[in-house]
Amino acid sequence: MRAKVNIDIANTEKLVGKGVKDSKKTMSQLIGVFKDEEAFKAADQDQVVYEVQAYMPVEEGKKGGLFWGNSMVYPGKVGTEYHMTRGHFHSNLDTGEYYWCLKGEGALIMMDLDRNCWYEEMKPGTLHYIPGNVSHRVANTGYEPLFFNACWPSDAGHDYASIEKEGFAARLFEVDGKPQLIKE
Amino acid sequence: MRAKVNIDIANTEKLVGKGVKDSKKTMSQLIGVFKDEEAFKAADQDQVVYEVQAYMPVEEGKKGGLFWGNSMVYPGKVGTEYHMTRGHFHSNLDTGEYYWCLKGEGALIMMDLDRNCWYEEMKPGTLHYIPGNVSHRVANTGYEPLFFNACWPSDAGHDYASIEKEGFAARLFEVDGKPQLIKE
Repeated sequence: MRAKVNIDIANTEKLVGKGVKDSKKTMSQLIGVFKDEEAFKAADQDQVVYEVQAYMPVEEGKKGGLFWGNSMVYPGKVGTEYHMTRGHFHSNLDTGEYYWCLKGEGALIMMDLDRNCWYEEMKPGTLHYIPGNVSHRVANTGYEPLFFNACWPSDAGHDYASIEKEGFAARLFEVDGKPQLIKE
Repeated sequence: MRAKVNIDIANTEKLVGKGVKDSKKTMSQLIGVFKDEEAFKAADQDQVVYEVQAYMPVEEGKKGGLFWGNSMVYPGKVGTEYHMTRGHFHSNLDTGEYYWCLKGEGALIMMDLDRNCWYEEMKPGTLHYIPGNVSHRVANTGYEPLFFNACWPSDAGHDYASIEKEGFAARLFEVDGKPQLIKE
């Protein structure tokens, strides 16, 4: 009768329960992600840039199922570029995803297959539909941890390799104290 | 750059934005749903029992897309049976769904194709995966509005007719001040 999984909203903001997988990315794991290589080298390589929890109650690849994510991106910049996630397309390209923001300030940066880039501001309560065929990454543009949740189809998969190789066509920098998306 | 849709978490708890559809069910629209017909007849027929908002950014029936829901079930009982939603299977049966609770106390009542029934307690922070081939309805077991969100595949569809015809195999009543699932 108890729910199998809970988010401890009031305290830790962590997803707790059987089958929840945790992962985190430290700066050292994000080599090649940020523009300013000198600033990257000078950064604390052990700092956690973001954490992701995933609840996957059906097998990966199953059609018609859904997975659920709980993410935290910590504030900071590498040079003037905001801390952000690696970003990915779905392997099964034409599958959508929702992100919604619970706390903090950020930006959901998206890029379509023609390499058009845009972003949506994230703040508590914003809901974002990421259409199929659109890669996505999240930057923290504020001064506190950015906390958001996600839901995606269990047959979506993750293609990180395309972004690792080709990057996004634009990057989000702080310019005059504000986020600005600048083409590569 | 702005998110197209927001939930006004701090105030109205409503989903606001282009493409959000609102619906509500008054008691009069729930004829046949509750066990106690006399208590049903005596109830205020114009009271709103629940409200549902849906954000459907792709066409219904599309594979790989997702829809998003924002629901409120108001507290109360018909006889000793808690206010609840009509309940449904998905038309595309083997598709899952998430419900997660933001406020209030409730129960997610589920039934599989063999008419086995069970429920999971809902309270702020609980996350519920409804597997494919499982019908689902939500009851408010508390004294304040029960506020929850949902995410489901855009090709899931809704089959209300099966439940209208066959009902659930069990109902949630208040017994000695507590919810109890009782077989029909």
